[in-house]
Parts: sequence; structure tokens; C-alpha cells
Amino acid sequence: MIYDFPLNEKSRTYLRLESLFSQIRDNLDSDQSWAHIAFFKGLFDLQELLERGDLRADLIKDLERLGQRLSHWASLPDVDLEQIKQMQQESTQLSRNLLSASRPGARLKEDRLLGSIRQRFSIPGGLCAFDVPQLHHWLGTPTIVRNQQMQLWLSDINLLMNAITLLLRLWRESGNFSDEIATNGFFQDTAENAELIRIRLPDAQQCYPTLSGHKNRFALRFLPTTEQQIGDVPFQLACC
Amino acid sequence: MIYDFPLNEKSRTYLRLESLFSQIRDNLDSDQSWAHIAFFKGLFDLQELLERGDLRADLIKDLERLGQRLSHWASLPDVDLEQIKQMQQESTQLSRNLLSASRPGARLKEDRLLGSIRQRFSIPGGLCAFDVPQLHHWLGTPTIVRNQQMQLWLSDINLLMNAITLLLRLWRESGNFSDEIATNGFFQDTAENAELIRIRLPDAQQCYPTLSGHKNRFALRFLPTTEQQIGDVPFQLACC
Repeated sequence: MIYDFPLNEKSRTYLRLESLFSQIRDNLDSDQSWAHIAFFKGLFDLQELLERGDLRADLIKDLERLGQRLSHWASLPDVDLEQIKQMQQESTQLSRNLLSASRPGARLKEDRLLGSIRQRFSIPGGLCAFDVPQLHHWLGTPTIVRNQQMQLWLSDINLLMNAITLLLRLWRESGNFSDEIATNGFFQDTAENAELIRIRLPDAQQCYPTLSGHKNRFALRFLPTTEQQIGDVPFQLACC
Repeated sequence: MIYDFPLNEKSRTYLRLESLFSQIRDNLDSDQSWAHIAFFKGLFDLQELLERGDLRADLIKDLERLGQRLSHWASLPDVDLEQIKQMQQESTQLSRNLLSASRPGARLKEDRLLGSIRQRFSIPGGLCAFDVPQLHHWLGTPTIVRNQQMQLWLSDINLLMNAITLLLRLWRESGNFSDEIATNGFFQDTAENAELIRIRLPDAQQCYPTLSGHKNRFALRFLPTTEQQIGDVPFQLACC
């Protein structure tokens, strides 16, 4: 089990968006009767994050920085040059497309069906047939029709999804796990220029990590899920 | 496809609760990776409805009224006396248990894990591993352990679920569908002593109903889901 902790506000937003993308995607083709709840919750949460600020500027900057990092990697011995070149191309392309694309999420905001569902979503039990009969009607249409509609909604944010997915993948791959021990459940260290702290624990471990910290310094505290005392906790750590 | 419309505030709450119960139950045993989103949304919406007022008084009154209605039915010719007797017993038992039970939802409020998830639930993307690591840990425990925990949470509201389910089932069974036509998509009528208006439409119908009204009078307007004019809409209606 891996826990990713962001070290700044920007990577916090990226991680949240990544999680929402996966929540949206996984509920796209689902035939489960309540899959639309997780799908819409993911989509509306995403819209709210997108409305907060201009993510594009951050993303473009990060993709450029990634390009430089890839050039550096290409100069190291024993690397897969072909793969690095491919990632450089992908990153440049994404960055260019982001620059020329319209603000992601704009189309979602204009959709009438989404608007009426979103308006009712925060009302407890507010998605009943009498509240949003158009949703009830929509849920009764064939899966293939609904799926096309959902894909259309997502077309507005696909670019953003791909950029964040690439960025986080390469950030994660840049870090190596090392074995550490948290004495009495406590561990602290510095992380120069890192965006994420990753903690790996065995599945059956009866505790979970919490992280406090900012930028270069961080402290980990492992909390027990049972009544037991925590003791020393072996874990793996990667700074990315 | 059936659309149920409530004619008063109380049946509006019952219908919302019924929908939430089904959302919670259907996501209880699901192995889908995001089923917990619909489960928790259902549970927190339910908690919010329960915190708003004392539902028990309304429910007990309605169960008693149901008992009188069942007695009246028992006096009619050609009825299944055995079944009516069984429903009378069920209704009396539920009403008695509701009187002596503690306020439903009280236990949910005290649960620490639920509390920390609920606190983060309205933050967009706020259920990431770094936000609620204890949830991430919990999702990693075996399905059977999680299921036991979920059942324990629900034990607090099972009584309420059963009472509302019985009530709505018998309300619905008390109404008979009749064929009607909404001229140019419009229809109005009176509904003496009814709690619900039920509208039945063929699955492929390119419109959905909306209802305005209160207590005894109601008006239905059918809205098209395409650009087409609405015209006359044949439908079935039941007042329950």
C-alpha cells in the first residue's frame, strides 16, 4: 500500500485531480446502478477545482521543467534514449496543445443536463426522480447513448488529464524507495526540491502515516488503527 | 419507467430516504473500486436528513394510519386475509420498536472513521490518501472486514429503513394505474388524501414529467428531451 503526500499546494491539486480522473474514468463504463453517483461527484469536484484558478500556467511550466529534466537524463549513461525521446515529444506536444486550447471545463459549465444535476447534487437525497426527472430519464436510456454523452463531457478535460497523468508518472518514477524506520512511529527528514513524499507499507500493517511539513522539511507520524501501542515502524520512503 | 412525485413535505422526505437506503444497500457488497463514494454519499445525506427533525413521530403516526387502512381492507370481500394480518403485525411491531428505540443515526454520529470521512467529503477531491489516510488504510482491509463494519453502521438505521420501505410499498400498492392523455404535454387533476402521484411512461418516450402542486391539486407538464414539439402524451397515472 502506497500513500502519496504532496509537499506544496500545486502538487496537492495535481494529486486530487489525478484521483478524480480515475474516479470519473472507472465509472464511465460501469453498469452498476449507482456508478453515476461516483461519476458525477468526480466531475463536479473536478469542475470546482478547475474554477478556482488557472491550472494551465502551472502545468505548462511543469511540463517545460520536465523537458529539461528529461534532457539531463538523456545525457546519463545506460539510459533508454528511445523512451526518453518519446516522453520529450509527448511532453512538448501536451504543453503546446495546452497553450492553444480553450480553458478546460468551460464546456462542462454550459451543459444543461449537468447544470441541473449539479444544482441538486449537494441537497441530501436530491437526485430523486421527482427532483431531477431529466436525470431519471437519462439513466433509462441505453448504456451506449449515455456513454457517448459522458465521453463528450470528458473531451473538454482530456488534455488536462493526459498532462497531469504524464507529469505525476514521471515524478513518481524519478524517486527510489529506501528502507527506513520510524522510531516510536515518528520520522523526520528534509526533501530538497521534492514535490511528493511516497510511503510504502505492507498491506497488513495496523497503522497509517500522516505527514506534516512544507517544502523542504517534513515529519511523519504513524498512527495505529487498533488500541495497540505503535512501536517502531519499518517502511519505505521515496522523495520525488 | 415510473416517476414518483410526493404531494407533501413528509412523503418527499420518505422518498428521498428510500432512495438513499437503496443507494447504501446496493453499494454495501460491491467490489467496485469507487463503490465507497456512492455508499458514503448515501450515508452522509441520510445523516443530514435524520438530523433535521424527528422523523419517528411522523412514521409512527403513518404506521398507525396504515393499521386502520389494513383493518378496512380486511373487511372487504375477496382479500387475502392472511397477508393483511401479516402486514398488520409487521406494522404494529415496527411502530412499537420505533417508540422504544434510541434516536436513529445517533451511533453514526459518534463513529470516528465516519466523522473524519464526512468532514472531508465536501472538499473537492478531498478523499485522497493524504487527506484521509485512515480511509485509504480501511479500503485496503479485506472486503469481509469492511462489510462487517458497514453492517454495524447500518444497524442504527435498519428499523427506519424497514418502516419506510413497508409504508411506501403499501402506499404504492393502494393506487391503481389508469390511462390518461396530457394534451400538448399538459394535464391537471385533484388527488384527495393522496401522498404520492405515480406516472408510468414507456421506456423509449422522448419526454419526462414534471409536477407542480400541493395537497389536493396537481398539474403535470411533460418536457421533451429533444428539439421536437411535445404534442399529446399518453401516460398512466396512479394516486396513492
